[in-house]
Amino acid sequence: MAVGQAYFPDMPVIEGVRLGSAKAGIKKPGRRDLVVIEIAEGSRVAGTFTCNAFRAAPVHVAQRHLAQGNARYLLVNTGNANAGTGESGMRDAETCCQALGELAGASAEAVLPFSTGVIGEPLPVERIRASLPEALASLDSSGEAWRLAAEGILTTDTRAKGASATCDIDGKTVTINGISKGSGMIKPNMATMLGFVATDADIDQVLLESLLREGVDRSFNCITVDSDTSTNDACMLIATGRSARVASDDVIAAFRAALDRVLIELAQAIIRDGEGATKFITLEVGEARSRQEALDVAFTVAHSPLVKTALYASDANWGRILAAVGRAPVEDFDVERVVIDLDDVRLVEGGGRAASYSEQAGSAVMAKEEITIRIRLGRGESAATVWTSDLSHDYVSINADYRS
Amino acid sequence: MAVGQAYFPDMPVIEGVRLGSAKAGIKKPGRRDLVVIEIAEGSRVAGTFTCNAFRAAPVHVAQRHLAQGNARYLLVNTGNANAGTGESGMRDAETCCQALGELAGASAEAVLPFSTGVIGEPLPVERIRASLPEALASLDSSGEAWRLAAEGILTTDTRAKGASATCDIDGKTVTINGISKGSGMIKPNMATMLGFVATDADIDQVLLESLLREGVDRSFNCITVDSDTSTNDACMLIATGRSARVASDDVIAAFRAALDRVLIELAQAIIRDGEGATKFITLEVGEARSRQEALDVAFTVAHSPLVKTALYASDANWGRILAAVGRAPVEDFDVERVVIDLDDVRLVEGGGRAASYSEQAGSAVMAKEEITIRIRLGRGESAATVWTSDLSHDYVSINADYRS
Repeated sequence: MAVGQAYFPDMPVIEGVRLGSAKAGIKKPGRRDLVVIEIAEGSRVAGTFTCNAFRAAPVHVAQRHLAQGNARYLLVNTGNANAGTGESGMRDAETCCQALGELAGASAEAVLPFSTGVIGEPLPVERIRASLPEALASLDSSGEAWRLAAEGILTTDTRAKGASATCDIDGKTVTINGISKGSGMIKPNMATMLGFVATDADIDQVLLESLLREGVDRSFNCITVDSDTSTNDACMLIATGRSARVASDDVIAAFRAALDRVLIELAQAIIRDGEGATKFITLEVGEARSRQEALDVAFTVAHSPLVKTALYASDANWGRILAAVGRAPVEDFDVERVVIDLDDVRLVEGGGRAASYSEQAGSAVMAKEEITIRIRLGRGESAATVWTSDLSHDYVSINADYRS
Repeated sequence: MAVGQAYFPDMPVIEGVRLGSAKAGIKKPGRRDLVVIEIAEGSRVAGTFTCNAFRAAPVHVAQRHLAQGNARYLLVNTGNANAGTGESGMRDAETCCQALGELAGASAEAVLPFSTGVIGEPLPVERIRASLPEALASLDSSGEAWRLAAEGILTTDTRAKGASATCDIDGKTVTINGISKGSGMIKPNMATMLGFVATDADIDQVLLESLLREGVDRSFNCITVDSDTSTNDACMLIATGRSARVASDDVIAAFRAALDRVLIELAQAIIRDGEGATKFITLEVGEARSRQEALDVAFTVAHSPLVKTALYASDANWGRILAAVGRAPVEDFDVERVVIDLDDVRLVEGGGRAASYSEQAGSAVMAKEEITIRIRLGRGESAATVWTSDLSHDYVSINADYRS
């Protein structure tokens, strides 16, 4: 299940980036499950990684290799997360980097490895190694290569996820392309599993890192399917420097806006394709004392199984939203000042149901596939937006009936 | 659905406590939905109440009346929570107290009101008032009266919940009886919705309050079905003073042990009857730096939808447990020291799957209806135990298909 129509944009060429993929049979045969992204020399790369204490082996290795500053290849496999695999998992990740480096004429340290899939199984290194030549032979910069790469990183996702934006800088067109995957175990903390974004802009390393960190804080870090943070989350931003330079304040602002559009679209695509999702919910919390407070309230509501099952049932059970807001970690909470709207229907004010509310109006909103819940706390000027999905029978089936 | 066999104990008489009930037709006809508990003069009463910021009207009124120090009646209705009902909800709760007080020859302030059921609907005061004489006429101290009262406070519960214990003090037998209800919206914070416990012991007010607070911290505050904290949670402890006096250190210790048995049995009964529950899970977290840290880890695992669906599927998907432990809010977390056991099967050590682990051994434990997950953090000497249930199709059906 998924919300809305499937959509994959036309992806323009990003000069300096080529993508290849292969069917390595990592978990099952016939599935595109191995992706190589080649980055031209002189590009800069920034990354954010999961804060889960049980970081997977490839996350450790990718962080170490990234720190060397000369990344030339991203190597991504689906079907196996190489997480919870201890020392042998670290060796397996290094072996894959070494194998790709040898074939491509680069050092092992120039390869950043990423894995997604089942936790705790040994990585099938030989199958990956055997398919690397096929993936390298297919390296291409076309939109079709982006689409195949987006397919090749999926796990329980039902849709390939891509986004693209451009901005004009000093008469040049700067392009940003991104792909992502994710459907369950989605409550990213500093990143999501997985996002790969590339631009042809020329951006210094420190700025690139801060643009990614701030962008991720407003996109991937604001989504949740089921409150579970993956061991393998990572988001990478590549700047090949083939187009305009991003350095002055005005230009940075324009570039940041375009980057944020791509990141938010990719993050929202994960929610629309959330495991068992039938609804796409935007939670806007305002009038909080701090952004953290707004986020705390938004995530408390977004994680409430009772709110999520009511959304699944299209039941305007505003009492459950109110109860969830009321248990959020907010000090000196004066509930009399809380106002809750469902789209344009006032649900709650003055500590209880709004006088103007009718069950009919509430039900009309709840019948929609995309709903905004607006919560104003009446105690400050900070705000935050979080996107989430509902909790359906299919979520339970997907996670109870299959080992994912 | 529920875990294990239904069981309601023989409840001995608590001198000074009588219970009555009636079918008031509050939500639907023919259901026992109104309970009156009469407390003899001179008894002492302690209470803990929900920390949800949206406390229901009866919670506010019960707290205010309890502070007067001469409670004589508890008035409990199911089918309607009288929560999110603003000023009119406060008046409705007061009106019910007034009506019972007039019939029973007591002041309105001697009545403590409790409500459970749907949030945000006006309390049907007239139906409650009309059934008060029937409830008063049935006041009785028998075990059968306790059982009918336990039935009369249920909502989505499938079983009446009761527990009883005795201890010998100075040659006298002290008895403790308790009843509870709860099945969904269960992550109590300072109390649960609802627990009523009575003893014939003679206990001073300050001691009674601290015994209840500490007991609730080890029982109702250590359970979770779905992480949602109700607007109406309350747990009351009544001491009628008809039996032995509890004051010296030795005697307090004996009484506390008996009281804890009752509270933990009642709390566990809520989990066994959790909405859609097919498993009863004990989470024991040890070697933490503080009890709070142990609780944080335990609740992070207990709230993980991916762990809960794996438990439902009897799938020894230890990677999900590891990922949940890894995202718990623990500073400087060295995952190499974490050890996780499923009953007597070692799952995780050294940051990954235990060498001795076999899928067959894991599956054998997971097939059981009652499972203990033991997590040792290897960083301190504090511990905590939390009880929870799994996440099943029935949980979604119960909360999506009906307005509860």
